[in-house]
Amino acid sequence: MTVELVSTGTELLLGEVTEAHLALVGRELRTLGMRLERQTIVPDGVVVRRILEEALFRSDLVVVTGGLGPTSDDNTREAAAEAIGRGLEFREDVFLRISSFCAAKGIRAVPDGIRRQAMVPKGAQVLWNSVGTAPGLFIQKGRLAMFLLPGPPREFVPMWRAAVVPWLRARAEGQKFLWRSWWIVGLTEWEVQKQLEEELRGLGIKEIGYCDRLGEVEMRVGSAEPSLLERAEALVKARLGTALFGENEATLEAAVVELASRLGKTIATAESCTGGLVSHRLTDVPGSSAAFTFGWIVYANEAKVEELGVAPELLTAHGAVSAEVAEAMASGAVRRSAADLAIAVTGVAGPSGGTPEKPVGLVWFGLAAKGRVTSFRKTFPGDRSMVKRLASQAALNALRLSLLAESELAK
Amino acid sequence: MTVELVSTGTELLLGEVTEAHLALVGRELRTLGMRLERQTIVPDGVVVRRILEEALFRSDLVVVTGGLGPTSDDNTREAAAEAIGRGLEFREDVFLRISSFCAAKGIRAVPDGIRRQAMVPKGAQVLWNSVGTAPGLFIQKGRLAMFLLPGPPREFVPMWRAAVVPWLRARAEGQKFLWRSWWIVGLTEWEVQKQLEEELRGLGIKEIGYCDRLGEVEMRVGSAEPSLLERAEALVKARLGTALFGENEATLEAAVVELASRLGKTIATAESCTGGLVSHRLTDVPGSSAAFTFGWIVYANEAKVEELGVAPELLTAHGAVSAEVAEAMASGAVRRSAADLAIAVTGVAGPSGGTPEKPVGLVWFGLAAKGRVTSFRKTFPGDRSMVKRLASQAALNALRLSLLAESELAK
Repeated sequence: MTVELVSTGTELLLGEVTEAHLALVGRELRTLGMRLERQTIVPDGVVVRRILEEALFRSDLVVVTGGLGPTSDDNTREAAAEAIGRGLEFREDVFLRISSFCAAKGIRAVPDGIRRQAMVPKGAQVLWNSVGTAPGLFIQKGRLAMFLLPGPPREFVPMWRAAVVPWLRARAEGQKFLWRSWWIVGLTEWEVQKQLEEELRGLGIKEIGYCDRLGEVEMRVGSAEPSLLERAEALVKARLGTALFGENEATLEAAVVELASRLGKTIATAESCTGGLVSHRLTDVPGSSAAFTFGWIVYANEAKVEELGVAPELLTAHGAVSAEVAEAMASGAVRRSAADLAIAVTGVAGPSGGTPEKPVGLVWFGLAAKGRVTSFRKTFPGDRSMVKRLASQAALNALRLSLLAESELAK
Repeated sequence: MTVELVSTGTELLLGEVTEAHLALVGRELRTLGMRLERQTIVPDGVVVRRILEEALFRSDLVVVTGGLGPTSDDNTREAAAEAIGRGLEFREDVFLRISSFCAAKGIRAVPDGIRRQAMVPKGAQVLWNSVGTAPGLFIQKGRLAMFLLPGPPREFVPMWRAAVVPWLRARAEGQKFLWRSWWIVGLTEWEVQKQLEEELRGLGIKEIGYCDRLGEVEMRVGSAEPSLLERAEALVKARLGTALFGENEATLEAAVVELASRLGKTIATAESCTGGLVSHRLTDVPGSSAAFTFGWIVYANEAKVEELGVAPELLTAHGAVSAEVAEAMASGAVRRSAADLAIAVTGVAGPSGGTPEKPVGLVWFGLAAKGRVTSFRKTFPGDRSMVKRLASQAALNALRLSLLAESELAK
C-alpha cells in the first residue's frame, strides 16, 4: 500500500502558513504499519490537476489537502474530477447541509462561492464537515483512490481520523507493525536515550525514536511482536518513574487536571511572565472547571500587591523576579481562592528587561498549599514565546509532582 | 525564474522531524520578487535521483536539502551527480577541511563515512560549512542549476543566506513580482472576496488569494507593477475600513497593544471560558506590560463574586453566561484594576455544559471603561479549543475597536 500526500495552497509556498499535516499523517500511518512515500506542496491553480494525475499513477492512495474553500483560488474539486476522468455534479444533500450550516450562522442566502462547494465529482462519497462548509470527498475509480480534505487543521484532523484512518486500517491487516509512545517531562531526549536505549536494544527492540518538543520528550518504540512491547513498556515505566506523564495522545495539562480531579483537589494560578498561558493550558482540558477555579494575571507590580497581597517591601527589597515574591504570590493565591494548591510564576520573558543578575529567561516559581509554600528557579533559553512555553511546562509539572506526592501520602 | 525545493529525509515522512525550510525559503524568495513553485519531500534512497531529474527538467533552480551526512542512508551527492550526468571525484581540499574540522573536535582518524563527504560531483562548487562536516554544493550544467544543502537548520540557514540568496538576487533584477498582504477580522473570506475581488480584477490585478485562519482572514495581492499595488492598497483600505487590522506579519494582539500604548491606555481582562487565552495572547507581544496590567481568570462562580464583585443575585437570576454577568465582570475589572478599559468573556466552551437556551459555543462579552459598560454576544462553531480561540479573537477585536473609537474622538 503506497500512500502520498498532496498539499495545495499558494500561502504554504509563500511561507505565510505553516504546513501542518505532514507530521500527523506520517506518525499515524506509522502506527498502522504503513509509511508515507511522498509529500508534494503546490500552489493553487492549474498545476494541481497535473500533480494529481502523476500521484494517482504511482500511489495506491492520494490524500489531498486544501483548495476546497469558497473563494476563486480553490480548485481542488475541479482538478480532482478532471484527473480521475469524472464530471462534477450538483449535490442537493450537500447543498442543504451547507445551507443549514450558513443558516445557523445567520446567513440566509447562500453566496455563490459557497454554493460551489456542493459541486461534487460524480460518484464521490461525501465526508461531512462539522466545523466548516467545505465537505471532504472520497473518490474511488478502479485501483485509484483519493481523499480530498480541507486544509485548516480543525477541519482536516477530524476527517482524517473519522474517514481516512479506518479506510487504511481495513487495508493494513497482515502488515501490522505496532508502536507505543510515552511522554516524558524534565529530561532531555539525550538523557532518556541514555537511560533506556541499551536495555531496549537488549530486549530485541529495533525501532526506537525520540522527539524533543519544547520542554517534553516523546519516546516511541515499534515492533511486530506485542509481547516485546509489553516488556518494553514495563522497562520504560520502571526506569522513568515520575518523569513519565502519559502515553499516546497525553498532554501535561490533562495529566494535571486528571490527577487533581481524581484527588478532589482544586488549583489556582498566579501568573506574571507566563501571562495566562498556564491557565489557558489547564482550561483547554474538557472538565477542567472541576479542578481549576481561580487565576490571576498580575503583570503589573500593583496587581501583585492589590490582588495577591504581596507586600510592597518584598518587591522593593528583592524585585518582582525573586523567590520571596514567587512564594508571596502563591500564598496569596491560596489564601484568596481557598484552593488546595497554587502555582505562581514570575520571570523575565524578554526580549528586554534582563539584567546581569536577572537575565532574560530567569523564572521563579512558587508552590503553595494551605500552611506551606516553597519556591524554585529555572533559566530557559529562547525567545519570549519559548520562555513562556517552557515556564508553563515547569509550572504544570510542579503541580503534577505535588499532586502525585499527595496521592502517595494518601495511600 | 522557476525555483523548487526538494527535501530528502525518511524522518520527515515518519513525522519525527518537522520540515523546517519551506517557510523560510518561501518568504525569502518572495522578498526577492520570486516565488517557490513546489516543494517535494521524499525519503532517502533511490527515489531521490528520479525526483531530481524531474525537477531539473521543469525548474530553473532546484534547491535540495538533506542526505549529505555521513551515514549509509545519505545519498544526495550520488543522486545529484547521476541526475545531472556527471561522475563524483575525491576532492583533496574538501578532505583537508573535513579532517581539520574533525581534529578540532578531537577526532584524529577521519571515519570512512565522513571521508565520503569529500566526494563531489565533477565541476561542482563547494560551499563551506562552518558548523558541520557536510559541505554544501552548487552544480551548474548549461541551463540546469542545483544547490545541495545540509538538512539541519543551523547548517542550512547560513548557506542559504550566504550562497543561494546572492545567486538569486543577481538573477532577480528586471522580473520583480511584488506581494502585499493584509489581515482582516470580523469578515469571512468570501465576504472579503465579495467586497473586493471584482474591483481588484478591474484594476488589472491577477494574483489574489484569501486565507481563512480561525477568526481572521489574510488577503494577498501580487503584481509586477508597483503602481498597481498602490492602487490595490488604497482600494483595500477604503473598502475594509476598521475590519483591516494590519499588513504582512501583523497580529491582532500586537494591533491592540500598539494602539493602547500609543494612546497611553491600560487594559485589564476578566476571563471565564477563554481561561487566560486573551491575556496569554496580549502578553505574547513584546512590551505589552506598558498596556496590559491586570487579568483575572474567574472560572468558578465564587471567583466572579469574590474577585470581581459580581453580585450573586445576577448569577442566580441570569446565569454565568449572560449579558448582565459579562457587564458586571468587565465593570469589576475596571474598578479593581483602575485600567482604562476591560474586556470580560463568559461562555460555554464545551464539550459539556450546553443547554437548549445556552448551547455550546455561546459567549457573552462585556466591555467596560470608567463610567460605561456594554455587552454583546456571539455563537461560535467547533470544539472547545476553537470556541476559546474564536472568543479570544472577538475579545481582542472589541478592545481594538474601542481603542480606535477613542483615538478618533481624541482627534
